[in-house]
Amino acid sequence: MPALDLEGDLVTLLRALVDLESVSGNEGAIADTVQESLSGYGHLDIQRDGDLVMARTDLDRDDRIVIAGHLDTVPVAANLPSWTTGEGDELLVWGRGACDMKGGVAVQLAAAARLQEPNRDITWIFYDNEEVAEEHNGLARVARNHPDWLAGSFAVLGEPSNAGIEGGCQGTLRVSVTIAGVAAHSARAWMGSNAIHGAAPLLNRLATYEPRKVVVDGLTYREGLNAIGISGGIAGNVIPDRCTVEINYRFAPDKSVDEAIAYLRDEVLAGFDLVVLDAIAGARPGLDQPAAAAFVAAVGAEPSAKFGWTDVARFAAMGVPAVNFGPGNPSKAHADDEFCPAAELTTCFDALVRWLS
Amino acid sequence: MPALDLEGDLVTLLRALVDLESVSGNEGAIADTVQESLSGYGHLDIQRDGDLVMARTDLDRDDRIVIAGHLDTVPVAANLPSWTTGEGDELLVWGRGACDMKGGVAVQLAAAARLQEPNRDITWIFYDNEEVAEEHNGLARVARNHPDWLAGSFAVLGEPSNAGIEGGCQGTLRVSVTIAGVAAHSARAWMGSNAIHGAAPLLNRLATYEPRKVVVDGLTYREGLNAIGISGGIAGNVIPDRCTVEINYRFAPDKSVDEAIAYLRDEVLAGFDLVVLDAIAGARPGLDQPAAAAFVAAVGAEPSAKFGWTDVARFAAMGVPAVNFGPGNPSKAHADDEFCPAAELTTCFDALVRWLS
Repeated sequence: MPALDLEGDLVTLLRALVDLESVSGNEGAIADTVQESLSGYGHLDIQRDGDLVMARTDLDRDDRIVIAGHLDTVPVAANLPSWTTGEGDELLVWGRGACDMKGGVAVQLAAAARLQEPNRDITWIFYDNEEVAEEHNGLARVARNHPDWLAGSFAVLGEPSNAGIEGGCQGTLRVSVTIAGVAAHSARAWMGSNAIHGAAPLLNRLATYEPRKVVVDGLTYREGLNAIGISGGIAGNVIPDRCTVEINYRFAPDKSVDEAIAYLRDEVLAGFDLVVLDAIAGARPGLDQPAAAAFVAAVGAEPSAKFGWTDVARFAAMGVPAVNFGPGNPSKAHADDEFCPAAELTTCFDALVRWLS
Repeated sequence: MPALDLEGDLVTLLRALVDLESVSGNEGAIADTVQESLSGYGHLDIQRDGDLVMARTDLDRDDRIVIAGHLDTVPVAANLPSWTTGEGDELLVWGRGACDMKGGVAVQLAAAARLQEPNRDITWIFYDNEEVAEEHNGLARVARNHPDWLAGSFAVLGEPSNAGIEGGCQGTLRVSVTIAGVAAHSARAWMGSNAIHGAAPLLNRLATYEPRKVVVDGLTYREGLNAIGISGGIAGNVIPDRCTVEINYRFAPDKSVDEAIAYLRDEVLAGFDLVVLDAIAGARPGLDQPAAAAFVAAVGAEPSAKFGWTDVARFAAMGVPAVNFGPGNPSKAHADDEFCPAAELTTCFDALVRWLS
């Protein structure tokens, strides 16, 4: 694969990236191509960690910001190679990764080439394994191996956000509740106690719970509390003695993980025996930072809250406020019919250049 | 294996039967032994169908009754060979099948040998595959192959009943209800509809339902309506769009299968979309039959209702009223610590001889 043209048409650049299949674990070729394509630019110091490519300016600016995007995609679903529909302002680029998030990567690569004397030092990060388990995540790996690569006063992740700014992200907590009963032959049910029937009060609690809407740093987050799994019963003639309900709580970034657990344990699900399965903190939007304020002004759009968890939380955990900003509709991420509007590529590129020139 | 001594001690006979392992599908050896042991008695016409042994008198009596017991057991659980505890009236025989139902088979074999000139013609049936799926059941097979072997005015099954008479049996019906929802990412739950939460009204209905108690032919049946399985959810970040609840209804023998289905569909679970998985009718106790009345008088105990489904329903379906009557506590059937009290062997044997002499 020859190096990409980072100064040409954004649609052509995006299609070249989409056509380079890079399902998680298979990012070698696209990382090589990105590295090769950036290597022609003398204003960038380029380094590599596995399939993560780091490229940064070193102009001794007072401020440094980080702009990051992941190179991997979820599995292909007969949606490669790329294709387009429409023309001009209506042109859409279709194919696996077009939305999540090679549109963002295309914008970032073009901006990395263009911004040869930015007003802040910039660290560009193109990383692997975002779509799979935490232990494989390239950003998490480089936070351990080279924490200085992620240092900065503010970070932008190019995840699809309809070319708007989505600030922070919500935390997510998974717990299970097991209702105990007493097994018995179902012909003599009164000798037992039905654990599935015993789950009714828990489901009632969940079904009637009104999720909070919380304003954090000026953005409104909408929480969610949902059963995402239920199982019980072992045979057609046995009164079940266990019923397990798995529950997901998406919580606004005003709460820590511990506060989220306490909220379920002591308030919403008080009286039930909770087992915490996993939890991950959210991230405050941090839009009070100077670099963030300048970014919001350059983009010229009102920021909104991000509901889903994204890698902005990794930056937040390192003390770096971060936002999502990229082309594409986040509700099309992972969809077989994912696409990216060409107009949003331009919008995002122009905003980054405006902010950092 | 030598033939059994059918005229000796009942405990010795039961232990010999228990020690002949005969998990469903492996009844060949025990069926051979039963056939061989009965073949010495000239008053019996003996025939075989697979591992079912039929032995009948043919004395041209006005009446014919059927007495049946199954030879198979559920799988062995380190409870073979047999052992005993206690002595005299307290003696218990332990081991797989002691309760369900080689105690009943021992009583029946001894009575078949003893009753050489019974007051009614008797058809003795020793059959295979009662503990497994319907399609393998020896009694069902012989009902197709040799319906005349099961003809009679009344039938007794030697299933454990604490040496009392348990009349008829309840029917059983299994249905499923699938609650539909709308899938969504759990970070944006309000875009979906949670099917597990949607199951709350169904579980409430089941949890608050008061099962009927119904008197049929003088016996009181106690029904049961229970969720016996529930499942829903596909991933930790997806609002589930399906939740399926499997429900078992044990119904008194005053209802047909169709009436039981209608009762759930139109009354108890009205408003939910029921799918019938399987159903099998119960059996009325039929204690108004003359042969039954004589039997009850000979046993000298008040009959009670049978809750669990047993093969008496197969006789009922052929128009032959049937009861359960055998040594052993039915709640120990299938238990790893199943046992049979020696005193109940004698009680049952004496009652059969008294009734039919």
